Amino acid sequence: MIKNEFLQRDVAFDAVRNRIEKSLKKSPRIINKYTDYLSQSQGKFIRTHTLLTCAGNDSGEVMSDAVSFCTSIELLHLGTLVHDDVIDNADTRRGIDTLQKKFDKRSAVICGDYIYCLSIEQASVVSDRHKYVDFSVPDYMSRICLGELRQYVNNYNTALAMSGYLRIIAGKTAALFEASAYAGAITLGVTGRELSRYRRLGRFIGMIFQLTDDCIDFEETKKSALKPVQSDYEQGVITLPLIHAFETDKDFLLKARHETLSREEINQHVMQSNGVLFTQKVAKRYAEKCNSIIDSLTATEQKKNDLRQIVSKAYNGLKK
Amino acid sequence: MIKNEFLQRDVAFDAVRNRIEKSLKKSPRIINKYTDYLSQSQGKFIRTHTLLTCAGNDSGEVMSDAVSFCTSIELLHLGTLVHDDVIDNADTRRGIDTLQKKFDKRSAVICGDYIYCLSIEQASVVSDRHKYVDFSVPDYMSRICLGELRQYVNNYNTALAMSGYLRIIAGKTAALFEASAYAGAITLGVTGRELSRYRRLGRFIGMIFQLTDDCIDFEETKKSALKPVQSDYEQGVITLPLIHAFETDKDFLLKARHETLSREEINQHVMQSNGVLFTQKVAKRYAEKCNSIIDSLTATEQKKNDLRQIVSKAYNGLKK
Repeated sequence: MIKNEFLQRDVAFDAVRNRIEKSLKKSPRIINKYTDYLSQSQGKFIRTHTLLTCAGNDSGEVMSDAVSFCTSIELLHLGTLVHDDVIDNADTRRGIDTLQKKFDKRSAVICGDYIYCLSIEQASVVSDRHKYVDFSVPDYMSRICLGELRQYVNNYNTALAMSGYLRIIAGKTAALFEASAYAGAITLGVTGRELSRYRRLGRFIGMIFQLTDDCIDFEETKKSALKPVQSDYEQGVITLPLIHAFETDKDFLLKARHETLSREEINQHVMQSNGVLFTQKVAKRYAEKCNSIIDSLTATEQKKNDLRQIVSKAYNGLKK
Repeated sequence: MIKNEFLQRDVAFDAVRNRIEKSLKKSPRIINKYTDYLSQSQGKFIRTHTLLTCAGNDSGEVMSDAVSFCTSIELLHLGTLVHDDVIDNADTRRGIDTLQKKFDKRSAVICGDYIYCLSIEQASVVSDRHKYVDFSVPDYMSRICLGELRQYVNNYNTALAMSGYLRIIAGKTAALFEASAYAGAITLGVTGRELSRYRRLGRFIGMIFQLTDDCIDFEETKKSALKPVQSDYEQGVITLPLIHAFETDKDFLLKARHETLSREEINQHVMQSNGVLFTQKVAKRYAEKCNSIIDSLTATEQKKNDLRQIVSKAYNGLKK
């Protein structure tokens, strides 16, 4: 158990990075080759930013328990990525070879399992565990699993509607953002309806983040995305820009049902139907909901601005 | 949280079966096809037997928290089996097709992850959680991962010594038996050195169980083992009967280093070197250690006899 004390937010942020690196680098010898490799390429810590911002008190400080929750959530995220890459047979992630590509699928399955253990252990080193009984890491982990599975059973399902797609990303991505906002708010001592607001805010930020990511799959170059672009459809994953193209062009939909679409055809029809613009509009509605939740929170203007900036970053694909 | 009360041991045993079945059958629709399939073929509940026997008070009753721990441990075991079968590309388990064979590897990876979540949730519904802070399901889960990985990196390693092999099975199998005895004893309120005795007892029962299982791989017919027999070496897994054959016959060892061995050759050399008998002797030493630990426990003669019977069953491959 680690003593719970107030930390400056940037100190907490560095502590999360260090704790993750230490967890991965100091693992037992037998698994170290794999976890050490993973530690070379860390993500953008957007979940940590969300959690620490939600956890901030009026002086912008956070309780050190927030560091444990951030570490737990980032490691859970990492574990799901490792397993995702096994499932998708993916070659590149965060600019380097995936674990399953660099080593093999067996090691990657075991390593993902091991990282889940690290994640759950981090959530249990918080000081006043009784304060957090309603926040369950495995509960969020199971929601992610269900989202993944829902995505998988809908592979190449050209009849997937927007509602079904939103349900997929609510599990696959938004659940962990909800967990971040929720855990952050709990460490601050938030309860009741205000706590529910934080949960919804986190969930909606996650929705925006995923919707924007799905647009990037149609927009960016391989280099700037640090992963193969337009890989979604090649994996059978149908995202909102393409769903919109199917809904607005029935001939294209019929074609998709009878033959394999080329990358160029998909691009062309998504462009013609303004599928990316449509998706951005959906993301914008979530951003508006986020901003009105932020307005209603009992928090300093500084904190509200920090939260608005997270929303804006999620909407702009972390560029601005 | 479930109220903690005394239960008859057979009532508790049935409660574990029901709770597992309910967890698997009542899962969300999207994953139900897979978990329902798994519920059709349950194991032998040897870990539950171990836990409930260790948990028994002088009247042979157990606290109902023991049911949650049994369910958690059996589900954790099930999750590892699902992932093992992905890793080993296995076709049959407990007499039916494996999940990865019946459906596919993707669903099996996700489903294993989901079952881990169920497992950890079960461990968190116990009533007096503060009583159990030292017992961590993820900690045991990580020990299993390390054992699995240690086994995998030693695939086809003809230089694997007995000590290395014992270390592998200590993680892969014995850790969860240790967890069973440990959790059982905690629910009974055991502490200090007596608690350490229970842990060692559980670990040694696990060692016996695995050593016997490795002998069965050379002995039994496919039908009675409910899984393909002599599949170990075909997966590259080198077990003690074969290690002994390598150690006693250097020509055979050299041959193994230069060419792929046939099933018949392995059989013949394990038989010539009395590899199975040697392994049974190692198991017997663990059984003797178990029995002297049991003698030293503060428990009724009935409970001690029940524990001795578990040791005997592990040694005899659950036949007697």
